[in-house]
Amino acid sequence: MPGTLGTGEGALASRKSLQNGGRTAKARRIMTAEIHQLHGDRPPSLDPMMALVAADMNEVNSVILDRMQSEVPLIPELAGHLIAGGGKRMRPMLTLACGKLLDYPGRRHCKLAAAVEFIHTATLLHDDVVDKSDLRRGRKTANLIWGNSASVLVGDFLFSRAFEVMVEDGSLKVLKILSRASAVIAEGEVNQLSAQRRIETSEDQYLAIINAKTAELFAAACKIAAVVAERDEATEAALDAYGRNLGIAFQLVDDAIDYVSDAETMGKGVGDDFRDGKVTLPVILAYARGSAEEREFWKLAITGHRTSDEDLAHATRLLRQHGTIDDTLARARHYGQRAVDAIGGFRASQAKAALTEAIAFAIARAY
Amino acid sequence: MPGTLGTGEGALASRKSLQNGGRTAKARRIMTAEIHQLHGDRPPSLDPMMALVAADMNEVNSVILDRMQSEVPLIPELAGHLIAGGGKRMRPMLTLACGKLLDYPGRRHCKLAAAVEFIHTATLLHDDVVDKSDLRRGRKTANLIWGNSASVLVGDFLFSRAFEVMVEDGSLKVLKILSRASAVIAEGEVNQLSAQRRIETSEDQYLAIINAKTAELFAAACKIAAVVAERDEATEAALDAYGRNLGIAFQLVDDAIDYVSDAETMGKGVGDDFRDGKVTLPVILAYARGSAEEREFWKLAITGHRTSDEDLAHATRLLRQHGTIDDTLARARHYGQRAVDAIGGFRASQAKAALTEAIAFAIARAY
Repeated sequence: MPGTLGTGEGALASRKSLQNGGRTAKARRIMTAEIHQLHGDRPPSLDPMMALVAADMNEVNSVILDRMQSEVPLIPELAGHLIAGGGKRMRPMLTLACGKLLDYPGRRHCKLAAAVEFIHTATLLHDDVVDKSDLRRGRKTANLIWGNSASVLVGDFLFSRAFEVMVEDGSLKVLKILSRASAVIAEGEVNQLSAQRRIETSEDQYLAIINAKTAELFAAACKIAAVVAERDEATEAALDAYGRNLGIAFQLVDDAIDYVSDAETMGKGVGDDFRDGKVTLPVILAYARGSAEEREFWKLAITGHRTSDEDLAHATRLLRQHGTIDDTLARARHYGQRAVDAIGGFRASQAKAALTEAIAFAIARAY
Repeated sequence: MPGTLGTGEGALASRKSLQNGGRTAKARRIMTAEIHQLHGDRPPSLDPMMALVAADMNEVNSVILDRMQSEVPLIPELAGHLIAGGGKRMRPMLTLACGKLLDYPGRRHCKLAAAVEFIHTATLLHDDVVDKSDLRRGRKTANLIWGNSASVLVGDFLFSRAFEVMVEDGSLKVLKILSRASAVIAEGEVNQLSAQRRIETSEDQYLAIINAKTAELFAAACKIAAVVAERDEATEAALDAYGRNLGIAFQLVDDAIDYVSDAETMGKGVGDDFRDGKVTLPVILAYARGSAEEREFWKLAITGHRTSDEDLAHATRLLRQHGTIDDTLARARHYGQRAVDAIGGFRASQAKAALTEAIAFAIARAY
């Protein structure tokens, strides 16, 4: 898919690799034709998807509010901080939108979407402990306010509660998908922890990590809509592929944004990945393309010995110089295109348009 | 059940409360008659239960070893440290022994027993992070060796894997029992966290905490044997009550031992609870019975301002003086007796004898 390569986050002048030179405009046109076709000239957004699922999402929200309650006050207090904290509810929204895509007439997917959000919230709480994060979605993290212990234990509670909700629904197939997804996510997190500060991480290894820690739950969130709608395996596989590729695209765009955004738009500090010694795709590509001297810089940076603001500025210069932020976004568009194709077989509908625009939105966040 | 009150961990001379004076020998005789009746004069042990379930436990162990594997090496490495670290496998052993009690001829309980152990191991990994423990079962804790992040994430993996194993078994009823138990455990842990360093915790509040964080999984481990054996609700309830009361007895004895044992026999340091500001039953009773001056001491100790070795020695003196270690053990025997009675209706068998002796063992550890 060479046509989707080559556009970038702006300044391409200093770029060393010229292989994609001149293709930017063409690539943008192709993306426009393929992904943006349904929303004309306005920037892609999640608004159509949100409008599509608004009524269902109210039900999801009341399940979430109801089931995060406990006689132990710290649980709703801490969970509420994160859950009320203005996330996009991307994963439950996908479950609901996929339900619409399949014309599912029931209500079961609302409870299950809430379970998916609980699993996601639990992993966020534990992630923040692991990453020692201070900010999440522009707010103080729970671990900063209530401490690591509370974050770990309330995460455990939400995770268990997710399974209780799934058991109430009663589908062993859904339970299988989401218990497997949870194990894969944890495995991916441990894998990432092992890869942390390891500059030799390859692109393949990195893709395996984000496939597990991000894309797996996107895939599961979509797939379970096909299960409750009692559709065939091909439909399950199509929605799985849609969610998985969208998830990878989202994560790659996040990786790029971490080096070009600021705390206000991103809801976390710029360069957080850099300071945490996280080896993300922009760095993997820059290391692969770097001189001996540059590689030495990256080694010191990733081990945590060179992470000052000046070092971050130098790192960002190297990424731009080697075009690796552009190329990370090109990779993201590749997965975005695969997500588009995964649901290509469904007949045209508002839901299909909204799901397609969500992909464009995921990628457009970087521009 | 006044007859089971009154015996203690030795020196009763300085005891203020005389209400149980002189009953020690009688109480011990009654416990001997009621609990120890099946094993004559040898000290109660878990040996009969271990012998009873040895073959099944081999199967459980191979499921555990098989299902803790992962392509991410840190997972089996860290999980193996704890799982191979010589725990008694008390919870899976109970599932298996209850299976024997019911003459269950199948194999399903072996996989489920492994799932129970995974849930337990996950909670231990997270507990050690919460408690900042250095020692567990006489070995360095995983968080000390691999760090908190790895402990949190490998715990999450084992927890998810437990659900995968349960889903493979396919019983929604078992899934319901164990997802509920997991939520209750996490709730209990958060509750305990909130109660930490809060000297005003009442005995009732404390019982609610240990019922959740310890007894719930004991109860679930026993109850699921009745589910796979397809027995009636009364049988489920009986095994639940057996496990729950045994669990409470275990925890209360642990609380007592923490003040009278040493690192070698307990596998953790003496006075750990004291230094962590944990308000356990011996302290709750001593605070309730203490003078104004003593209460002031407890307040300072529990808030962490007076936890030197000398303070611990003073605390232990106060506990002995008010007989609260004895009385904690008396409470433990009360719950032990309830566990005995819970399975009183089953016909005599090797399994019943072994389950009964396990109660006596739980209590005898303190002597």
